[in-house]
Order: sequence, then structure tokens, then C-alpha cells
Amino acid sequence: MNLYEKRLSLVRTAMHENGLDTLIITPGAAMRYLTGFSELGSRFLALIVPDDQPWLFVVPALNAEQARRNPAGITDVRVWDDAQGWETVLGPLAKDLMLDIGIVGLDDDMPARFVLKLQELMPTTLLKLAGSALAPLRSRKDGLELASLQRAAEATDALIPIACAACKSGVSEMEIALAIGQAIARGGNADSFAPIVGAGVNGASPHHNTGTTQVKTGDVVILDFGAMADGYHGDITRTVAVGTASDEAKRVYEIVYAAYSAGVAALQPGATAHDVDTATRKVIADAGYGEYFIHRTGHGIGLDDHETPYILAGNYTPLQPGHCFSIEPGIYLPGKFGVRLENIVTVQEDGTARALNEAIPPEIVVL
Amino acid sequence: MNLYEKRLSLVRTAMHENGLDTLIITPGAAMRYLTGFSELGSRFLALIVPDDQPWLFVVPALNAEQARRNPAGITDVRVWDDAQGWETVLGPLAKDLMLDIGIVGLDDDMPARFVLKLQELMPTTLLKLAGSALAPLRSRKDGLELASLQRAAEATDALIPIACAACKSGVSEMEIALAIGQAIARGGNADSFAPIVGAGVNGASPHHNTGTTQVKTGDVVILDFGAMADGYHGDITRTVAVGTASDEAKRVYEIVYAAYSAGVAALQPGATAHDVDTATRKVIADAGYGEYFIHRTGHGIGLDDHETPYILAGNYTPLQPGHCFSIEPGIYLPGKFGVRLENIVTVQEDGTARALNEAIPPEIVVL
Repeated sequence: MNLYEKRLSLVRTAMHENGLDTLIITPGAAMRYLTGFSELGSRFLALIVPDDQPWLFVVPALNAEQARRNPAGITDVRVWDDAQGWETVLGPLAKDLMLDIGIVGLDDDMPARFVLKLQELMPTTLLKLAGSALAPLRSRKDGLELASLQRAAEATDALIPIACAACKSGVSEMEIALAIGQAIARGGNADSFAPIVGAGVNGASPHHNTGTTQVKTGDVVILDFGAMADGYHGDITRTVAVGTASDEAKRVYEIVYAAYSAGVAALQPGATAHDVDTATRKVIADAGYGEYFIHRTGHGIGLDDHETPYILAGNYTPLQPGHCFSIEPGIYLPGKFGVRLENIVTVQEDGTARALNEAIPPEIVVL
Repeated sequence: MNLYEKRLSLVRTAMHENGLDTLIITPGAAMRYLTGFSELGSRFLALIVPDDQPWLFVVPALNAEQARRNPAGITDVRVWDDAQGWETVLGPLAKDLMLDIGIVGLDDDMPARFVLKLQELMPTTLLKLAGSALAPLRSRKDGLELASLQRAAEATDALIPIACAACKSGVSEMEIALAIGQAIARGGNADSFAPIVGAGVNGASPHHNTGTTQVKTGDVVILDFGAMADGYHGDITRTVAVGTASDEAKRVYEIVYAAYSAGVAALQPGATAHDVDTATRKVIADAGYGEYFIHRTGHGIGLDDHETPYILAGNYTPLQPGHCFSIEPGIYLPGKFGVRLENIVTVQEDGTARALNEAIPPEIVVL
């Protein structure tokens, strides 16, 4: 049984447990997980996974040749062309597969223009999200996936000195991001996402849009970036000071570092995502900065850069071996600066954490 | 009345004509068109446009600051945080706005995970696509938009000599794509999409994934790329031969060129998208290659790289001043090579076409 046949068998069990008769998966991480194949484009392209019949693809003519070379070895590839439209293939197929009397799980990322058209084509079908069946499988990485995530982490760590070298007074955020991007391309990798560089007051906005602001002496700078490997994402954040660090910057950094460390330490057998979030958040709240930590503690990572498990209050999912996610506390002081620190960690067989990335400096690095 | 107030007024008229009481728009081109604001991320973030009450944003806490600076001047920004989830804000809001007894137009690209959750929160609401109201507005570009598309076209044209210089025997497709990407970054622009470089037999797959194949003497190479300007997309395709061109390559190129020219010439007052597709396709069919032109003739372009109007058989949309789209016929010979030629054209006030890009060479260029 090859990798994809094994995953198909696991997903069918999960479909059964979640009451899904069929999955309809559009391009993206879920399709890549199941078949090794995915494709960009705005046209309807779908993997259909019935619970008891062979799986198949419905693809536009211009992707037919690529789809037939899918790594999962799926041989049934139904092709539609632009003049007829995809509904002319999917409509009769839905009847054949009796989707009209079933419960169909849609790709969580399927665009509304397909979702509402499918509901129109199959008005008696109950539509649910495929993620209920897929996410638990995808969140626990196997050995091959862990190796890929480790490679992504190493390719990402290799960017730290490059980002720090670029981070100088008079250099713009975009130039720093470009230096990171060029280093990723030179390494033959893709970037995991557009680097976030937040200098000075911009760092107080957690998802600041990297812009033309120039770094100046005394700035605290947030650097958030990642390189990919084998389709898997890397993602780290470091915060540095340029030229000199204020006492406040040093103190806030140390609190965030302590929060990160508490999150890692909270990963013990039986710990839930909620527990890790609580342990991290408590350090920041106890230091008096609770209101300035305005996002969840972390997110799962894999073929998507944000996926389950999400590390937040109220998520009582037990963290288990193979889970991979970020721990990334932050303190954002409007009008002043922000500090965020992030590594990717995985849960080992013994239930404790191992960081895939190199250690975060315990004190703010002054460049 | 500023630009965004004007668009709001136009979209409300279009909502009325399309029977939509409210729009819910998630990040992407539609949000950028309406408000000048958009944001990446996996969390729920939406612009809500009621037909008779002020528009507003629902945003995650970590994007609140950015959202409040939206260029449209929307002041009502409702914030949710990770611990409570977006449903706790959207549920009561839907009641206040009486969405439960209305027809709501969803962003065409809204992911299924939000679509199905919204349907669950508002079980009595009829969900439709917002595109019916938005696409006709967005497809006819105003003067400012045309100027941006012209800048994107010029930034894209400037890449042609760079792509050609990189396209040499022994160089891989990825290296050529990287040279294009670096030139885009040096120009301070973003790439419109990942460049497609298809060498030799790879060119026979219209949306080939640029890979490690090395160009060799005698190869026909498809180069498809674009740079952005002001958020608007550029997109062209050139096909070249390396070292020498076979008679078959020359002949096929000339047929595709004639098809492109026929498509441009078909743009006369009153012409529909169908007419342009038919005129283009007829040249290729008459030359005996009809079965090898396996995609539509073109796609609209603007804040999205693929948007309405789509230039294909059966689309009887009249092409009108301000419409901007690609004309991009191709012939794909499996196991041999492919030829595709593409420029962006706009419909002028007199109903005829003007190419935004520089002229396509009438005979294949041998590098």
C-alpha cells in the first residue's frame, strides 16, 4: 500500500466516523495531502472521494495531462472544457454517485462560487465541511512529514543571520523583506508567506503590512518569515533592537521569552491546546501586559501555514505525538513597539515538546 | 463624494437590481475594490454592506488597527478576539441587521468554512453570490483603473527582454522564472502570479508547473508572466525558439498569431465575448488545429488576475468601453511543444480594441 492509498484508507475511516458519504476537495493542501497533486487556477477542479467506490478527478481540459500524472495513481480523470462548463460533467456524476441523497463534505477552502453552485446542482444534498474528517488526520504528522517540516525549519533558521544583517538603520522594511525573499529563492525554496517586517511603532500591529518605513536607531523590529520544503511550511518570528535597546524593550522581550518558555514547558502528556495557551498567557498577564497580547498563542503548521491544532483558550484538543504548531506569544504596545517570539514545536512520543527551530535568544539581541 | 463612496453608491444600485439586501465580502479583490482595504489571513474578516444602513467591518483583534485606517473611511469596526470567536459578534449583528429574513450576497471567493457557518448562523437567510452585483461594475474600468492596468502592462513588457536573455540552452525553467521574479522585485513590484515557463514538450501543457527541465537547442519555450502595479495585474505570454525553429514551430506560431490578430479585429462595436472567442478559434480550426486549442480565448483582468469578462463560447456579454481582458490563443501538441500568445486589450470608447502591451512579433523569435 503506497502512502496515498494508506491516507485514503484512513480518511475513509474518518469519513465514516464523521457521517460523511463523499468528499469534494478543491485544490490546496487537502488535495495535496490526499493525492500529492494540486493545481493553481480559478477553474473548477476537484477530487471526489466516495466512501465505497474508486476516487476520481474532475478537471478542466487544460489541466488534464497534469492530473493524469497524479502521484496517487488515480486513473479516473473526468475532463470538462471551457465551452461546456464544469456543471455538465458534475451534474450527471452526482446522480451516478447518488450524491443527491447523501452527506457531502466540502473542502474547507472551497470558494463560495463553487459551494453555492454545488448546492444548486444537488439541492437535496446535505453539505458539511470535509475538515471534520481531514483535520485530525492531517494534524498528526507521520515520519516523512516531520522530516519535511524539519527541513523547512532548518531552511527558515538559515535566514535569521540574513534578516539580522539586513536590519540596519536607514534600511526600509521592504528592503529587509526582499533580502529574506532573495535568500529563500537562492536556496531553491519558496517562501512560506510574505515576510512581515515591523519596525518601531509598526511592530505594535501584529500583522503589519511590510512597507517603506525605514528602520532607525533604537527601533525594536519584528521579523516574521518562513521558507518551505517539500511543500511544508516554515514559520518563525524574532524580535531585535537596532543600535540600542531601551529598558522597556528589554523588559518586554524577557516577559515574552518567559511566556514562550512557559508554553513549551506546559507541553506534558495529557496537555490540551487550552493548557498551553493558558500557561503562555498567564506569564504575560502576571507581568501586567495581558491586554496587549491580542491573539491566540499559536497555530498548527504543515501543508498549510495555518491549520489545526490552533493553540487558544477553549480548544480542549489533547496535544498528541505528531502534532506540530507554533508557540508565538507577543506584546503589542500601541504607539511604541511590539515584541513577538515564535518557534515551531512538535509533540514527541513521550508527550513533551521539541522545537524544530533553533533556540530563541533569552535576551533581546541588539544589532 | 470620494472614489469609495461612489463605488458604494453604484454597488447599492446593482444590489437592488440583483435582489440582494446585504453583501458579506471577505478579503480579496472585491473588498479592495469597495474599500481600498484588504488583509491576508485565515481568520474571519468581513465587510458588511447593507442596502440602507452604514457599511461596517467585522475583524479579528489583530487586524483592528489596520482596518480602522481603511481608505474608504468606514468608522464602524466590530472586533472579535480569538478566545470568543467571530460567531459571537456576527450572530447578534445578523439579527440587528435582520439578515435572517433577507437575501445575502456572499463574496464569490469566501471559503466554505465561512459559507457553511454563516448558513448555520442564519438558517432562514437565502445565500447568493455577490458577484452578480459586483462583477459588472468591476469589469468596466474607470480612468484611474485603466492607468493602473497600463502601468502593470508596461512593467510586464519590461520583463520580455529579461525573460528572453535568460532563455538559453542549459538553463532550467526555474532559473528563467527566477530571473523574471528578481526583475519584478528589483522594479519594486509584486509578481502577478508565479511565472509559467514551459520548455519543449512541457509547453504542450497549458498550465505546466515550471520545473527543473533544462532548455535545449531547438526548443520552443512558452513564457507567461506578469508584474503588478497599484494592486492591478499584468499578464502576457510570449513563445520563442532557442537556437533554431523547426518549420512546424514556425507554422504553428503564425497560425496562433493570426488567431490573436483575428480576436483583436473582432472587437467592433456590439461584439460579444462569444464573437471574439469564435473569431479566434476559427483561425485555428481552419488551419486544422482546432482540437489542440483546449482553453477559452481569454479572461478579464484587474484587481484579480482572472475575472469577468471571460472570453469564451456561449458568453454573450457585449464587450463595452472599459472592459479589459486577455486574448491568448494557443496550440498544444502533446509530446512536441506548445505555442501561446497573449496580450491584454481594452475596449475603447469607439468599441475597438487597444492592446495595453507592446505588439506581439508576427513570426517566432529565435533566440
